[in-house]
Amino acid sequence: MTATTSTVSKEQAAIEQTLTDQVIASFDDCQDERLKEILTSVVTHLHAVIRETRLTEEEWSKAIDFLTAVGHITDDKRQEFILLSDTLGASMQTIAVNNQAYEDATEATVFGPFFLEDAPRIDIGGDIAFGAVGQPAWIEGRITDTEGRPVRNARVEVWECDDDGLYDVQYDDGRMSGRAHLFTDENGEYSFWGLTPVPYPIPHDGPVGKMLDAVGRSPVRAAHLHFMVHAEGLRTLVTHIFVEGDPQLEIGDSVFGVKDSLIKTFEKQAAGTSTPDGRDLTGIEWTRCRFDIVLAPEDA
Amino acid sequence: MTATTSTVSKEQAAIEQTLTDQVIASFDDCQDERLKEILTSVVTHLHAVIRETRLTEEEWSKAIDFLTAVGHITDDKRQEFILLSDTLGASMQTIAVNNQAYEDATEATVFGPFFLEDAPRIDIGGDIAFGAVGQPAWIEGRITDTEGRPVRNARVEVWECDDDGLYDVQYDDGRMSGRAHLFTDENGEYSFWGLTPVPYPIPHDGPVGKMLDAVGRSPVRAAHLHFMVHAEGLRTLVTHIFVEGDPQLEIGDSVFGVKDSLIKTFEKQAAGTSTPDGRDLTGIEWTRCRFDIVLAPEDA
Repeated sequence: MTATTSTVSKEQAAIEQTLTDQVIASFDDCQDERLKEILTSVVTHLHAVIRETRLTEEEWSKAIDFLTAVGHITDDKRQEFILLSDTLGASMQTIAVNNQAYEDATEATVFGPFFLEDAPRIDIGGDIAFGAVGQPAWIEGRITDTEGRPVRNARVEVWECDDDGLYDVQYDDGRMSGRAHLFTDENGEYSFWGLTPVPYPIPHDGPVGKMLDAVGRSPVRAAHLHFMVHAEGLRTLVTHIFVEGDPQLEIGDSVFGVKDSLIKTFEKQAAGTSTPDGRDLTGIEWTRCRFDIVLAPEDA
Repeated sequence: MTATTSTVSKEQAAIEQTLTDQVIASFDDCQDERLKEILTSVVTHLHAVIRETRLTEEEWSKAIDFLTAVGHITDDKRQEFILLSDTLGASMQTIAVNNQAYEDATEATVFGPFFLEDAPRIDIGGDIAFGAVGQPAWIEGRITDTEGRPVRNARVEVWECDDDGLYDVQYDDGRMSGRAHLFTDENGEYSFWGLTPVPYPIPHDGPVGKMLDAVGRSPVRAAHLHFMVHAEGLRTLVTHIFVEGDPQLEIGDSVFGVKDSLIKTFEKQAAGTSTPDGRDLTGIEWTRCRFDIVLAPEDA
């Protein structure tokens, strides 16, 4: 007979606590104090899950099978453990812990699996598409520190998916598109042509997809454009901007990456509207978006 | 700068709690109430580990790599996730939760990965070795219910490693040895020849072995003999007996399976001592051990 937590006797609770204490004591000889601290926390909470839920042996067995499936689908190109961490909000919680709010500094969000080190450099006002198909979007902004001083020569990395919801690396044909880096000018300003972001699902044909399905959750990420900004003496910022009006913002981003401060207006521009840099977009609708960035001090 | 829990501001704590709440709320539409309960507990405690330890992004990354390695070494013959669960005491805690102490019923312990369904049947007093090498041990006992009534015709499965610390299945040559099943007689009594148990390490050439090494723990299991007892109307008992005086009992069993009530005396018998069934063990030392078993009611 399965007992619920409330029906566990004092004697039984003591037996269970003794076991947890015994496991924690097994780390007594660990020379690495930080590892000991982390494992103690892991064991405490792992045992708490088992005790609180009165996990059955069959459920334990299913959990082992689930983790095994996550391990087996993971390879050089597919990282199902990161998807699991993302969809349980563990990635975003790690970001939150390590990038604490500091005055009016721009908020961080998840890094995601699609960044590449060697994206091409473009000039200010350049185009990151390199063949990626989608609605053109003019993105511009100014980067300052929390004192309001412009940040010159900040390295701005940007990357995003195409209109089919796919990043270049997902095509497996060696293309590099929808990504670039550029540097701010003497006023801390930057601008570039990108694509209006579209929502896309995280890979959901594996065990994590099955989990989302079982709990009635959407695998879709709210539309976003990735940013990573490096500048000397300032905290590196890894973030996204999201698209105001994207219905997925209501449904819920599958990895909990959305922060209200990161939702930006992508203003629709009718075909024929003149472009900031004179680019000829005759007959094509486009959008424009402003994203001013504030960087925290490195040691904040 | 990494903050410790104690330096987290109220505002930051609120941001972190909001995220946890948001992830838990994502299970609101889950139709399977039990799955919802388990995932809510998992998310609560997973986030608590990250927040309490102020887990760094690098540590998160190491955790992902560790789980990936556990997944990749796991195959049909090697189950590293079970080893991980065992060495963190999660398997034993699941056993504890599902096999609550009931009056004077014999305590349960871990099942382990080496049971086979189709072990040979032996008569009472038979030998389970079938070629497994080790010091002969005469094991005998009586099985009763918690009212003291003998349990007739109980099915007793027993299995153990040989003198080299290996189970038959670990030889990969199809042998079946060191295991059998038998039935109690009309007085609830059983007896058989087995081998005096010896300590052996769990597989420790993988990521779990590295973890044990990093924390300064032994991979060795205290010497034991496995039992599983089925009888109609009574709770199935999965347990071991351990060997009094085994130094590993002091060092610590690597999977936390030991309970004091399961430590039994294997009395040394000098070579030439007459055997209970007249078996000729001239020139060979042997041991004998009594293990009386009490079975809880099925619905206890």
